[in-house]
Amino acid sequence: MSKRIVVALGGNAIKKREERGTCEEQFRNIETACNVIMKLIKEGYNVVITHGNGPQSGNLMIQQEMAKKKVPPMPMDVVGAMTQGQIGYMIQQTLQNMLTREKMNIPVATVITQVVVSKDDPDFEDPSKPVGEYLSEEEAKKLEKEGYIINPPPGKMYKEKKMAGHVIKRVKPNGERPFRRVVPSPDPIRIAETEAIRSLVDSGTIVIASGGGGIPVMEKDGGILLGLNGVIDKDKAGERLAEAVNAEIFLILTDIEYVYLNYGKENQKPILKMSVAEAKKYLEEGHFLAGSMGPKILACIRFIEEAKGKKAIVASLEKAKEAIDGKTGTTIVP
Amino acid sequence: MSKRIVVALGGNAIKKREERGTCEEQFRNIETACNVIMKLIKEGYNVVITHGNGPQSGNLMIQQEMAKKKVPPMPMDVVGAMTQGQIGYMIQQTLQNMLTREKMNIPVATVITQVVVSKDDPDFEDPSKPVGEYLSEEEAKKLEKEGYIINPPPGKMYKEKKMAGHVIKRVKPNGERPFRRVVPSPDPIRIAETEAIRSLVDSGTIVIASGGGGIPVMEKDGGILLGLNGVIDKDKAGERLAEAVNAEIFLILTDIEYVYLNYGKENQKPILKMSVAEAKKYLEEGHFLAGSMGPKILACIRFIEEAKGKKAIVASLEKAKEAIDGKTGTTIVP
Repeated sequence: MSKRIVVALGGNAIKKREERGTCEEQFRNIETACNVIMKLIKEGYNVVITHGNGPQSGNLMIQQEMAKKKVPPMPMDVVGAMTQGQIGYMIQQTLQNMLTREKMNIPVATVITQVVVSKDDPDFEDPSKPVGEYLSEEEAKKLEKEGYIINPPPGKMYKEKKMAGHVIKRVKPNGERPFRRVVPSPDPIRIAETEAIRSLVDSGTIVIASGGGGIPVMEKDGGILLGLNGVIDKDKAGERLAEAVNAEIFLILTDIEYVYLNYGKENQKPILKMSVAEAKKYLEEGHFLAGSMGPKILACIRFIEEAKGKKAIVASLEKAKEAIDGKTGTTIVP
Repeated sequence: MSKRIVVALGGNAIKKREERGTCEEQFRNIETACNVIMKLIKEGYNVVITHGNGPQSGNLMIQQEMAKKKVPPMPMDVVGAMTQGQIGYMIQQTLQNMLTREKMNIPVATVITQVVVSKDDPDFEDPSKPVGEYLSEEEAKKLEKEGYIINPPPGKMYKEKKMAGHVIKRVKPNGERPFRRVVPSPDPIRIAETEAIRSLVDSGTIVIASGGGGIPVMEKDGGILLGLNGVIDKDKAGERLAEAVNAEIFLILTDIEYVYLNYGKENQKPILKMSVAEAKKYLEEGHFLAGSMGPKILACIRFIEEAKGKKAIVASLEKAKEAIDGKTGTTIVP
């Protein structure tokens, strides 16, 4: 019986910051990531893959904005679905080709995945996730005329699908382009396609699912799903995926080798291993940044506590295999 | 044991010609289509769904073109993958909600699907499928400067991924915008994700697959897949899907009620039922247009001959159920 592992790839593993994001560049980056994943497959791991979509959905939003007089832009649930198709295809084909070269007959498939959030999530009252380009005051005011609200007070108005996704906040104190669109980033509760994904994974398929944190949907009136203009943290959603498939290991691959105490300070110290209790304490003490390491650690804690996982790991893409063996990266255990 | 049926929805079942294609419009149209599919599910059919993507990929290509200075456009294999995510999500959620309302516990999932074509397909030497907007001579000449070729002679140059998708042809003899991009539309050979799709269908999941004719890929060097800048006919790909899942019935839903002999002429006559031999004879006699009914009939013939299907049906979306019962639509039998 092989060990089941969920691997979460960062959006930057697919499009690097300095790149424009051509098709060739993205395929090349995905090849690097898939080489790492192949190592795990060859070791006998039963791999499930999830990934970020920040750069891809950002690009799509620019395209939508620039063509909006001719083509109606899609809300973020649909944008998320589109990037799941795009990135899923690229990973799936790359991995299939690597398996073919190794004469390993394992199917690979991408499942379009919705992730259910609570309609009462506090983030609907004060959207927190910046998306798309930075905007100048002039650009923000122009969007105001199209129905956007700039720096609104927290309130219930973002709950309705029509309203959400139309908020602009000043996200930098100064500079020429201090504004950005913000959307709700609600907490994921469960993967809507659990049954199909589990059935594929159980049949031996390498599944790519919940890309970009999944398509955000809320449940109303006894289970009716409604897409919403927001975005879910991909590591938190990845944890729900790990729950759905009963994974033993949840591996978050990012661009740094360790999680640190006192990160960025003179006395910063890498953490090789910590218990859930320690992780909670450090989190409370403010060692992990809200927008970056915080959600990853929260996802790891949840994986151990709620999914009863054996270990959660945060590591760099390059050293994934070594991290699983406990030689590098940060491992969180019960 | 329930009967297995593959239903192919036309792209216009999702975005009507007269609509701009907002998210709301597309969800509304999909609701109509899914109401029809629900009838089949309630009758006990084991349904697999495929769909067109012409209007959606057209819109995405406009967005890509208008933003190309800022964001690198994706080739048509990736565009296809994106529309599979988009439309798959919309169908999946709509159907899930209808099943929830009926208290029917059947999973629904979209699988991102590549469809393999031959690298020696003749369409690579003379691309035939018009895509994107109509262009004026001025616009065509502008694209020529960016590397497009206008009205090239047939040849082998379109085989390479870089070249394909960069051809413009005069598709109308006159008018202000007679030009259009053309891409290869090779014949589908097989569904790359057959194993995963079949395993899901066998487990009772309603699968949405091979959207937009599938992501076109060619096989080289012992099975290595390579995406290509083209588009596959969705009904022909739907037939390969029907083969992959061993369907008994292949149902093509479109906007006309019957296939006709002498279509559009004074003596036009609807066909209620025909054998494969008759269909071949009518096809040879030129009763079915190459760009519209032709590929549908070819797909139906292939379904009976190669997939050993029981019946293939071309019918209008509104009368799908009646068509299966033989009361309307055109049924092709061995």
